[in-house]
Amino acid sequence: MHAALPAPHFCTIDAVDHALEPILRGRIDAKAKPPGSLGRLEDLAVQLGMIWHPMPPRAERATVFIFAADHGIAAESVSPYPASVTRSMVSAYLAGCAGMNVLAKAAGADVCVVDAGIDDDLPPCPGLIDRKIARGTRNASREPAMTTDQARRAIAAAVTLVCDAIDGGIDIVAIGEMGIGNTTSAALITHRLAAAPIADCVGRGAGLDAAGVAHKLAVAAQAAARTTATAPLDVLAEFGGFEIAMMAGAVLAAAARRRPVVIDGFIASAAALVAVRLHPEARDYCVFSHRSAERGHKILLETMAATPYLDLGLRLGEGTGALMAIPLLRAAAGILTDFADLSDVLAGTLGRRS
Amino acid sequence: MHAALPAPHFCTIDAVDHALEPILRGRIDAKAKPPGSLGRLEDLAVQLGMIWHPMPPRAERATVFIFAADHGIAAESVSPYPASVTRSMVSAYLAGCAGMNVLAKAAGADVCVVDAGIDDDLPPCPGLIDRKIARGTRNASREPAMTTDQARRAIAAAVTLVCDAIDGGIDIVAIGEMGIGNTTSAALITHRLAAAPIADCVGRGAGLDAAGVAHKLAVAAQAAARTTATAPLDVLAEFGGFEIAMMAGAVLAAAARRRPVVIDGFIASAAALVAVRLHPEARDYCVFSHRSAERGHKILLETMAATPYLDLGLRLGEGTGALMAIPLLRAAAGILTDFADLSDVLAGTLGRRS
Repeated sequence: MHAALPAPHFCTIDAVDHALEPILRGRIDAKAKPPGSLGRLEDLAVQLGMIWHPMPPRAERATVFIFAADHGIAAESVSPYPASVTRSMVSAYLAGCAGMNVLAKAAGADVCVVDAGIDDDLPPCPGLIDRKIARGTRNASREPAMTTDQARRAIAAAVTLVCDAIDGGIDIVAIGEMGIGNTTSAALITHRLAAAPIADCVGRGAGLDAAGVAHKLAVAAQAAARTTATAPLDVLAEFGGFEIAMMAGAVLAAAARRRPVVIDGFIASAAALVAVRLHPEARDYCVFSHRSAERGHKILLETMAATPYLDLGLRLGEGTGALMAIPLLRAAAGILTDFADLSDVLAGTLGRRS
Repeated sequence: MHAALPAPHFCTIDAVDHALEPILRGRIDAKAKPPGSLGRLEDLAVQLGMIWHPMPPRAERATVFIFAADHGIAAESVSPYPASVTRSMVSAYLAGCAGMNVLAKAAGADVCVVDAGIDDDLPPCPGLIDRKIARGTRNASREPAMTTDQARRAIAAAVTLVCDAIDGGIDIVAIGEMGIGNTTSAALITHRLAAAPIADCVGRGAGLDAAGVAHKLAVAAQAAARTTATAPLDVLAEFGGFEIAMMAGAVLAAAARRRPVVIDGFIASAAALVAVRLHPEARDYCVFSHRSAERGHKILLETMAATPYLDLGLRLGEGTGALMAIPLLRAAAGILTDFADLSDVLAGTLGRRS
């Protein structure tokens, strides 16, 4: 058991033992199938095997954590939707009727909705976890989105929350988000941590037209010009938001507890990059689920040497891409745990399995 | 209720009403998400909506039908595995410990194993459905793999089997196969029905090296040169096999009963092409699950204007790719049935859903 450590470390994370890879590949090659014929599921099985070593991987209980927060930069009209939609969508998650609920049901995953910093006083509600840092961030185009102390507290809160949940029996952690304006924050984090031109990081978000993207780029460029920060915690504090900070914390928690963490799309990947810059070992625990249609995602994936498993043109967020990858993790774990060897099949020595 | 009709029709199939497409797109655009943000899942939702119309789509109960049979052409060393592996793998499916069992569990799908023509006298076994047409096909490089009467009987048997299963409550039909040598049959069907050069249709199968592929191509070319057949039933009879015939029947059955049929990889797609050439309306019911690493699959997909949902480098067969797509169908159906409209979310008029 690792206890949460004080900032800036938050928790201790051990890298996986990469020397296990050829051993796991050998075990998979011995299964009753042509070598390599399960393609990328085999890569995923190897990753899960390394993460869970010396235990066999488990993949029964999956929970998607949806962190929601508002963004001061939304006042600059960087999204086609008003900021109040953040709160409305959270109500939909709690009512079980949003897109992510539909996909969570299809994936057999539990949903955990976290108020990381919604700009509203939500009444206590079953299923809503209150970890509000503040009622939204400040406007990052004019001033730092949050203090570094707020960034630390947000990460630490998620580390504790997700570590506790894992200790309660979660096998797979998935992360997603809701926050009107947060593709702008993610674009700024990508720009600064991946050293990419801001113009390559800003995309259509929730559906801007060309003029909208041009305006969003101007706002983002203004924010970028305001600061020269490059340290991960400082970049996070400068550009926001609270849900990104908490997703970074969730990644660290999963890595600290040696569980896979399924990363959703652009914004979740920006959070993963923050986590990986804080703790490079955390990369070993990240499963990048899908290739988002949002422009800057490609840069993040390349920066973290990640090849996602799905390419379905999703750009909704809310953990939807991560959820669609959960059955792949279940299959990959089963390759290691429930799949007979070819030698046993040919020898006819099989017992009936569950 | 459509009864199975005599050959060559087998069953009656109605095309879906494509005029529903813009109506369904409009309904999906009204959901609480940016228009288009669920990408290809929205395309799948539209297809399921058209298939199930006027009922809402269901996607709870999924069954993968694994049809197994032997191939006389396997005597020509077109596979790196001996023909006896067909029977051994069927034992593994029944023992619940093969790759497809692992993936069926991950997808929440039932497994139905059908002896379409295994070259062995299998003892009666719980879970094995005996629809054996013969103990393997004849060697298609020298003579027709089966008679057209056998082809008809194989298709009709699967139509009856799968129609009955659907009447028993299956929402999603998935098809897969096992049969050492069957990539050669599928390559020949592709060559003849898609009018593609045989060299473009022959691939590595279960893992041939370059010399093995060259030999397999020579054997396939000998089979192709033996006949000028182009009618789908004749092509099927010439090149085999019984499992391909039964998969074609399963496609027809699903279409006759207005259920989606999830097509696995190269060999299942060759069967789908046979079905579509017999009944072009059947295409509307086919969901092409994944892009196989087997070479000729691309030709089949292009011929049927299909863009698969997954690209995981799978080349195992056994329905594994189809199984990995089943959660996508569940998600797509849920988009139509369980996802609130944006107007309701913004108005705050949501009731708690299951």
